Amino acid sequence: MSEDLKQEALEFVREHPTSHLATVDGGKPMTRVMYTPRVDDDFTVWYATSGSSNKIRQVKADPNVCTVFYEDARWVGVCGQAKVVTDQEMKNELWEDDWTRYWPDGAENPDYVLMKATPESVDILDLTKPE
Amino acid sequence: MSEDLKQEALEFVREHPTSHLATVDGGKPMTRVMYTPRVDDDFTVWYATSGSSNKIRQVKADPNVCTVFYEDARWVGVCGQAKVVTDQEMKNELWEDDWTRYWPDGAENPDYVLMKATPESVDILDLTKPE
Repeated sequence: MSEDLKQEALEFVREHPTSHLATVDGGKPMTRVMYTPRVDDDFTVWYATSGSSNKIRQVKADPNVCTVFYEDARWVGVCGQAKVVTDQEMKNELWEDDWTRYWPDGAENPDYVLMKATPESVDILDLTKPE
Repeated sequence: MSEDLKQEALEFVREHPTSHLATVDGGKPMTRVMYTPRVDDDFTVWYATSGSSNKIRQVKADPNVCTVFYEDARWVGVCGQAKVVTDQEMKNELWEDDWTRYWPDGAENPDYVLMKATPESVDILDLTKPE
């Protein structure tokens, strides 16, 4: 992947922080829409969620995940392995103020956890450009 | 599900015929964005694709699929079983003229196949309405 393509893709996913995240549950695929508070330079994708959610149960049992960012004919797909992160420093760093609607007592709430998806493959398509 | 909610959800998916479709490949989730030429009244979702595509290989090996339609805080999720449909009458019925860019010889091309995802569960969320 060229450095220009990679940089454009990073800008795109950061400006469109919504991804469809697929997991596997008992051998069957599950997918849902999730806000992505952070995407690292290597396309590691971070999520914030409840420690008691189905997706956390699923990635603890089977860490394989695959996610797609898509809007206006631009597409970035990241497939890899997810793990749950409960490190308080990272939880504080990614915390967003309006998440008090989920966790009224803030980033210290143990139910607030992060999920970090480390890529094994990254696919980038830009259908807005001529082939 | 109430009849009103179901009808609103059907209108929504038909007006936003783009879904993120998750399959399983060798135990790992895969997901991609796909146009949906038809959604039946029972939320059976139809796709058109190449018979040699990865997704067709995947659903032949493992028919479990899960798809989400999402736009502007509205969400319809359909999980179930997919199968490949090569019936020429259905292929003709769903054919759209601009697909000649994929299959220049039209709906008779054996590489043009349909994939029919029959729901086992349907989830509807409308985040635009008060809870």
